[in-house]
Parts: sequence; C-alpha cells; structure tokens
Amino acid sequence: MGHEQNSYCNRQTRVRSMFPVLGLDGIIFFDLRTIRYLTGFSGSDGVLLLWADRTILFVDGRYQEQAARQADSAEIRLYEDKVTGLLGALSDEGKQNFGFDASSLSVDLYLSMTQRLGEKKLTPLGEEIRLLRAIKEDAEIDLMRKAAAVSSESVLSLFPSIRPGVSERELVAELGYLLRKNGSDGPSFPIIAASGENSALPHAAPGGRRIQKGDILIIDCGAILEGYCSDETVTVVLGSLDPEKKQAYAVVREAHQEALDAVRPGVSCRDVDGKARERIERAGWGQFFSHGTGHGVGLDVHEAPRLSVRSDEVLEEGMVVTVEPGVYFPGKWGIRIEDMVVVRHDGIEILSRVPKELKVL
Amino acid sequence: MGHEQNSYCNRQTRVRSMFPVLGLDGIIFFDLRTIRYLTGFSGSDGVLLLWADRTILFVDGRYQEQAARQADSAEIRLYEDKVTGLLGALSDEGKQNFGFDASSLSVDLYLSMTQRLGEKKLTPLGEEIRLLRAIKEDAEIDLMRKAAAVSSESVLSLFPSIRPGVSERELVAELGYLLRKNGSDGPSFPIIAASGENSALPHAAPGGRRIQKGDILIIDCGAILEGYCSDETVTVVLGSLDPEKKQAYAVVREAHQEALDAVRPGVSCRDVDGKARERIERAGWGQFFSHGTGHGVGLDVHEAPRLSVRSDEVLEEGMVVTVEPGVYFPGKWGIRIEDMVVVRHDGIEILSRVPKELKVL
Repeated sequence: MGHEQNSYCNRQTRVRSMFPVLGLDGIIFFDLRTIRYLTGFSGSDGVLLLWADRTILFVDGRYQEQAARQADSAEIRLYEDKVTGLLGALSDEGKQNFGFDASSLSVDLYLSMTQRLGEKKLTPLGEEIRLLRAIKEDAEIDLMRKAAAVSSESVLSLFPSIRPGVSERELVAELGYLLRKNGSDGPSFPIIAASGENSALPHAAPGGRRIQKGDILIIDCGAILEGYCSDETVTVVLGSLDPEKKQAYAVVREAHQEALDAVRPGVSCRDVDGKARERIERAGWGQFFSHGTGHGVGLDVHEAPRLSVRSDEVLEEGMVVTVEPGVYFPGKWGIRIEDMVVVRHDGIEILSRVPKELKVL
Repeated sequence: MGHEQNSYCNRQTRVRSMFPVLGLDGIIFFDLRTIRYLTGFSGSDGVLLLWADRTILFVDGRYQEQAARQADSAEIRLYEDKVTGLLGALSDEGKQNFGFDASSLSVDLYLSMTQRLGEKKLTPLGEEIRLLRAIKEDAEIDLMRKAAAVSSESVLSLFPSIRPGVSERELVAELGYLLRKNGSDGPSFPIIAASGENSALPHAAPGGRRIQKGDILIIDCGAILEGYCSDETVTVVLGSLDPEKKQAYAVVREAHQEALDAVRPGVSCRDVDGKARERIERAGWGQFFSHGTGHGVGLDVHEAPRLSVRSDEVLEEGMVVTVEPGVYFPGKWGIRIEDMVVVRHDGIEILSRVPKELKVL
C-alpha cells in the first residue's frame, strides 16, 4: 500500500528540511491527521514532537499499545497530563525554538504551556505547513480512488430505495450500512440526504422528512479507507421534473464542467472557483451559490487547498480536490454536483464514479 | 420537549449572571455544543456573542437559513471571514472585556484576533464555564433516556448476528443501521466492536477481524436524539468461557457496581473513580485499568465532569455520567462494562438498558 515506514520517514524528512528556513529546532504537531500522516498512528489523541534528530509520539494509556504497533518511526512516550508531559520533553532537550500547528492547538493548552516555558520559544505555524499533506503520493491516491469507488457504488446501490415515502433518515441508515458493507471504515463525514425544501440547506442534517414525488434529493457522502476520505455529491429528482429545476440542474452542471475543465497544475484555486461562479452568476443566481467551489481531500475530508473566492493557493500535480458548485433557493430547493479529482500534469483524473447527468428516479 | 426558546433564554440568563462576578461585558462562545445549548443552533460552524443586552449568532452563508430557523433568541449575523466579522462586532460595542471558551478556540484565530483588538481585552475562560451544561434539565434527561433506550435496543437486536465468522466491521455496519432505524440521528461516536486481542485496546478501531469461538467482544456505542448523546458498553463472550475471563468479568462487574453505588449528590468524582479502581487493584490489575471510570454526557458524548483520579469535581443532582471500569491485558483481551446514569437526590437512575450480567452468545 506504500504505507511503509519509509514513507513516514520521507515525510518526516520533508518537515525537517523546513527547520533551517524557519529557524526552528523542531515542530510540535497536535493535528491528529498530520500525526497519522507523519507516523501512521491513528488514535484519537496524541502529540508528535519532531526534532532534527528524534521523533517522539506522546500518547495516553489508552493508546500505548496501538502507538507502539503503528508508529515504528517514533519513540513512544506516555503522558498523564498532556501539558506536563510536553513541557518535560521540551526541557529535556538543549533546544530553544519550537514551531507548532496553531490551528490545532486550543488556547487553554497554549496558555498553560507558554506560562511555563521559561526561555523556550513557541512559534505558531500556519501557512508554512498548511499544504504539507496537499500533494498526494501514488499510494495515497490509490486509497482515495478505492474510497471513491466504494462510495459511488454505495450511492448507486441506494438508488432503488429512493422512493416516495422513504425518509431521509432511512436513506442515511441504508447508505451508511452500504458504505461499510462495501469496505469503508465508516462515512468520511455525516451523510447528507436532503430532500425537498431541505435541499436548500447546503449542510442539512437528515431528519424524518419523507421524500415526495417531484422532490429534489441531494446525497452527499464519502467513504474512508485506511484513513483516506472520499467526497461526492449527487442530486437526483423523483418522478416528474419541472422546467425550472431542469434549467437549474443544467446551469450547475455546466458550472461544474467549466470548473473541472479549469483544473490543472499552475492554475490558481481562485480561478477554478471563478469559472463555476461566473456560470452561475450568468444565470443570475450568484447570491444563491453560498459556498466555495471545492476543497482538498485526504486524511481529512476538508483540507488544503481551498477552491474559493479568497483562496491564494495554486494547484499542483498530485493534489486531490473536490469540485462542487451548487445553488440553494431558500425555502424551496437546491442543487449541488460534486466530483473528487486528482490534478494530473495534463488535466484531471475524476475519482468519483456516479454519472453526473441528471438522474430522474 | 422543553426545547422551547424560553429554555434557551433561561440558559443565557444563567451565563449573564456570571458577568459581574467575572468582570466581563460579555462572553464569546466558540464551542458548537455550547452554542447549541444556549441558542438551539445545530450547525457545524458559528460563533456566539453573549452580551448583557444582546445575543448575536455569527454564521457563514451555509447556515444563514438554518440559524434563522433555529435560533429565535439570537440576532443572526453573517461573516465571510470569522475573525474580521468578530472584530467588527466587538468594535461596534461600547464594551471592553470579553471572556471566551479557551478550550474551543484555536491559537491561530486567537492570535489573529488579539493582534487586532486594540484596547479591548480577551479573557480565557476554563473552569468558570466548564460545568455550564453539566446539570441537565428534565427535558434533556428525557432525550438522553430515549437515546439510551434506542442504543440498548439496537445492541440487543445485534446479538443474533454475533456469530463466529462475522467481522467487526460487519457488526459495526449493522449496529449503525439499527441505531438509525430505531430513531437515532447517528451514532454518538464511532462505534467500537473489538474482538479477541483487539478488545485489549480501549479505543480499538473496528476492522476486518472475524470473531471466533471463545472470543471476548466489546461493543461500545451510543445514539443521538436532538443532539443529546448516550453511551453504553457491553462485553460479551462467544461460546465457551474460560475461568480466567469469567473471573475478570466478575471483578470488573463488581468494580462497576461499587462505583454505581457510590454515585450520589455531594460525592467527589475522584471518589467514585476510587471505588472502581480499588476493586480492580485488589485483584492485582490496577495497571491494566488504563483510563478514568467515567465522564459526563450530554450534547457531547464526553463532557464535564470527569470521573478520574485527577478530577476535583463533585457530583450534583441532575448530572448525567458514565460508569465504565475496564481491564485490558495487552496482546490478550480486555473487558469493559459501562452504564450511563443520572445523579438523583437519593442515588442514581440507570439510563442504559442492556443487562450487565455476563452474556455468553
């Protein structure tokens, strides 16, 4: 699978190569996805200290055995209290300047650490490490391709159950079951099944609403394989299709295609967003496209880069991103179409597999 | 359901009553569960500003409609960039001193806010607000009682499927389906089904391992109803039962009972933990009980108070906590028994419903 310990070592080496540039003696990682990326450890709590000459993974008692099993490239240390454990490790070393991932540390831990740091210096890192996991290795893309296939297959298997009278909650229950049955370690985020007026909420929570003839139904879900996520959205219509919805679907489909066509190495993420946004604005619905066009996917279902109006990132070969324009008419209905794609040197490889032509069930 | 807007107003009033004591003009809440508790808003992003005279809920475009629908007690404002939006709101006001929930704000946002705050002061809050949601109202307990019933019913319905040859992953898929089918909005945390040597990992991730005769199987799961969680662990044995496991089960069962017997208002959480721990230490297995005895449950599946060696909290009537001692023999197997209980004036009400006598399947 390429998830060999030397992958982890290579990734750690890549981080270490930043130390001189950043003037750091090491970086402390709190983000669990990044810890998994750098060591293989998949527990729900832990801290990783990456020094020039050592890799130390701190865990609590629950994860001692798992950490030893998964993280060959790290020394495992136990803490009872995270801050005390960390400060002990920092004071052990003849090192002074430590970076840390500032988006994954809470203020309470930060303040209780800084108050007891003495001469040592903690430098918040953000931009410097934000794209650390963005360019995927082949083995990572393989897992994401499989995850996408599992998710698409599950959605297609769900289609026969999408009938008037079935509730959103029942569809989510069945889709969750299908995902796992088809090999996913779970849904990569809470499954969305939003019907009728609920489809006007981009992040609707599925409920007891029963699907009716003429409804739009947005299904947004993903699988996880060995930690790697997929993400795909399918909008279907039940029974009859009125011209207004048909036209809106066509517009979002074109926005989706124009954004897909724009994805290639060297293109700014803002421009990809712009392609989808322009098409929807041309239809007069700019205000109803209330989110960005896409986001990176990997160990997190939402990670860098962002494909949005305010993004200043540039696509590179090997990045995996979603392209998911939508329109949402409050109180009425909405449409979203999403694929997950790999940025290839000459364009894209689409990983999600449900055809995006309008499906009338 | 008691989830009336006046519940939210009463809760907000309770927070406001702390302002004079803390010398604050308002509190900024970043924790989404607390935001739900105080306003009813259940989206996945947002910030709540609670001033003496106003309640402002900040959301992004995705949640505008939902916030307006759910949070009657708050003015809804949109932000494009969270920090800029917040700073705008803070500067609007003739107010100077703001508290915030320091465990739910990340360092990057904190630093970018504090750098632009000018004269205004941000005070991190921790202990002061940690128990804000700990004592449950009757309507909250009703939801948790129902959630616990849904979860227990689902586990009992799963029993016939627990047979040699079935994989952990298949059991998790089925249990997830049953939870939703029985009315849960999802599992309250990733379901644990840990068999054989995996049961020695307190937080095992379910995998492809197929259950064998003689295995121990730990099932740890919960339901969610209107945001409220349940949490229960059941340990069963497949087929034959060796004396060692039988004895260990008896010890954990006694530890569990002694801790349950200790739960009542005015008792320190540390003492409840001590009851379970003493029993397990008496069997010589203290080192194999590698986690705390329990935790509060509510809108979060893990919330205050903590029932652990280092807890300095005291139980009060209306708190809902788990009691879940366990032993884990690395590389071999483990046992955990967990109930979720309400602290009543004269003892406890047990919400979880699966009988805790050893079940041989």
